[in-house]
Amino acid sequence: MIYLDNAATTYPKPLQVIKSMDLAMRKYNANPGRGGYKMSIDTSEEVFKCREKISKLFNASNPENVVFTLNCTSSLNIVLKGILNKGDHVVVSCLEHNAVMRPLQSLTQMGIDYSVAKVYPKDNDATLDSFRKSLNERTKLIVCMHVSNVWGIRLPIERISAMARQYNIRVVVDAAQSAGIFNIDLKDSNIDYLCLAGHKGLYGPMGTGIIIIKNANDIRPIIEGGTGSNSISMEQPNIMPDKFESGTLNITGIIGLGAAIDFINSKGINNIARHEYNLVSRLYEALSNMDHIELYMPKPDLNYFAPLISFNVKKLDSENVARFLSNNGIAVRAGLHCAPSAHKFCGTLDRGAVRVCPSVFTKYSEIEFLISLLKNKRLHNL
Amino acid sequence: MIYLDNAATTYPKPLQVIKSMDLAMRKYNANPGRGGYKMSIDTSEEVFKCREKISKLFNASNPENVVFTLNCTSSLNIVLKGILNKGDHVVVSCLEHNAVMRPLQSLTQMGIDYSVAKVYPKDNDATLDSFRKSLNERTKLIVCMHVSNVWGIRLPIERISAMARQYNIRVVVDAAQSAGIFNIDLKDSNIDYLCLAGHKGLYGPMGTGIIIIKNANDIRPIIEGGTGSNSISMEQPNIMPDKFESGTLNITGIIGLGAAIDFINSKGINNIARHEYNLVSRLYEALSNMDHIELYMPKPDLNYFAPLISFNVKKLDSENVARFLSNNGIAVRAGLHCAPSAHKFCGTLDRGAVRVCPSVFTKYSEIEFLISLLKNKRLHNL
Repeated sequence: MIYLDNAATTYPKPLQVIKSMDLAMRKYNANPGRGGYKMSIDTSEEVFKCREKISKLFNASNPENVVFTLNCTSSLNIVLKGILNKGDHVVVSCLEHNAVMRPLQSLTQMGIDYSVAKVYPKDNDATLDSFRKSLNERTKLIVCMHVSNVWGIRLPIERISAMARQYNIRVVVDAAQSAGIFNIDLKDSNIDYLCLAGHKGLYGPMGTGIIIIKNANDIRPIIEGGTGSNSISMEQPNIMPDKFESGTLNITGIIGLGAAIDFINSKGINNIARHEYNLVSRLYEALSNMDHIELYMPKPDLNYFAPLISFNVKKLDSENVARFLSNNGIAVRAGLHCAPSAHKFCGTLDRGAVRVCPSVFTKYSEIEFLISLLKNKRLHNL
Repeated sequence: MIYLDNAATTYPKPLQVIKSMDLAMRKYNANPGRGGYKMSIDTSEEVFKCREKISKLFNASNPENVVFTLNCTSSLNIVLKGILNKGDHVVVSCLEHNAVMRPLQSLTQMGIDYSVAKVYPKDNDATLDSFRKSLNERTKLIVCMHVSNVWGIRLPIERISAMARQYNIRVVVDAAQSAGIFNIDLKDSNIDYLCLAGHKGLYGPMGTGIIIIKNANDIRPIIEGGTGSNSISMEQPNIMPDKFESGTLNITGIIGLGAAIDFINSKGINNIARHEYNLVSRLYEALSNMDHIELYMPKPDLNYFAPLISFNVKKLDSENVARFLSNNGIAVRAGLHCAPSAHKFCGTLDRGAVRVCPSVFTKYSEIEFLISLLKNKRLHNL
């Protein structure tokens, strides 16, 4: 199988990730931060090492600001529901994933409302202006993805967060689709809450979400329980990361994620992005010469786009095209990608789109094979 | 190391669990329920197999009522915060873990109150009566652990839930400490929400929590987001288990948990309980003959206790005893075990207790070695 659904989950995983998880199950299998015996302490240390690696990768001020969750969706829910109160207003981009839109929609029942800022691909001035115009005197939060999981559009989060600082508005960035591809520097930006998925561009296992919280004072936890700290108190402890890490974490997954970060550091994330960019550039060029292919975005350019391409074959439903490719050994994802807002943006809400996303492991020959299949006459007869 | 902290996390894990997770990382590493290609479908099937095994083990009515979470603490938070509204009253036992008490304490700020029912070890009539007397006309929920993680006390959840049915009160059972040791039959009981940890007596990896929900209609999700289903809607889908499973799950862990359930089925949970009971009986007998050891519960009996023993060495802090044992190669857990309520119950809030919990892998010789250490004169001089 040629796997081109890396925007959902990267595959294959680096061998060192798989091996580190096997080792974790055999050697680091005690509850960290609970027992005082060697395996518990060793496990705590392994988890802390992963916190340090993440902290360093995103230039966070402190490894203790790195919180582990189940997934990026949990991270976003924890932030949104931990900060917002009745009467607050939120600004989101018009491309957000259901991981943002569904919690936000449910928060409207609590008297929270939101505005949607339009995004202008390749025109960051216009995008920024659109965010600014969406603010009002009640705006507490801007929630913005770094990269659209459907169209690859890269949003100017550094400029948006700098603008937010002027108005004392906090910023949540959903970097599920960009981490491991683009650099994010927390010390150099005004991002208050960075939400991440471990299993995509960071090459870790599924079930590893992250929040990096700049200031934990004004955010309530939504999950409370045993933390191994200050156990005598019925109040959730205020210390980080315990405040947001109740119960037993996915230790095996976290240790795997630590190995994955070593892997991407050894490759260099700029090199990874460049490799994937070269692949999608070739694909874009080929697709733009096929009359039956509909492309929605301009030619890729890492300043404005992450290396992924979504398209349609004229008159065909995207699911049919994905099935044809799957029958020929290529895994891609069609449909709405849990992001109806993004599909509304390009008018593809009715039939979705076919998304192709390479990884560091994708070969040129695999893209060439995809191109040859998309030229195939049989495709026209579906 | 002799590992006797199995009440925190079982160790070692069965080899088939470790192997299945390795295989999952290599072969079942696509997002289930999202893509239409083979690996995504295969992964969905593996996850569904685990749901079926859990459903069968607890005699649930439908595998789709089995929801995967990060951990049992998340499960309990999801249930409590998804059901309770302002003005509701809750009854809990006096032994509950912070995974119940901390969320409940935070819910009091929303106008929810609770009463604490006393537990009478070995006197189920008195315990039941105490729960009944704690009810009032606003009581919506009883939240009750099956087994105390500190004292091993087994609560009569079948009788408590039968009583609750008479008053149309719903029942949440925290079976973190009993699953895999004692049978729980959901068809034969009135348990509405069964919360489970995969990494203790079920022998799965850490990061695998479960809720089995009898009726999902009147419980709101607290985490919303992409589910791969009904993506066009901004409302969280009502179908199970999607309603409570947003974002990418810990697939590797879930597949490992499936293998773990095969393992305990092959051993037979009654046989596992009997093996562990024999070990703790021997320990109890030896400890009750040592003048310097303080025991808090009567002689073990599987009708009333799970196979674990907590004790203190007279005049010593429990952490000092655990350190002494750790220095001699034995891993146990001292302190408050995230359950101050349970320690208050036995008057051990000031110094905690030393908890010994065997697993199916624990050998008699290991218990004998522990006994020999506890007889050791050096212990008295700590």
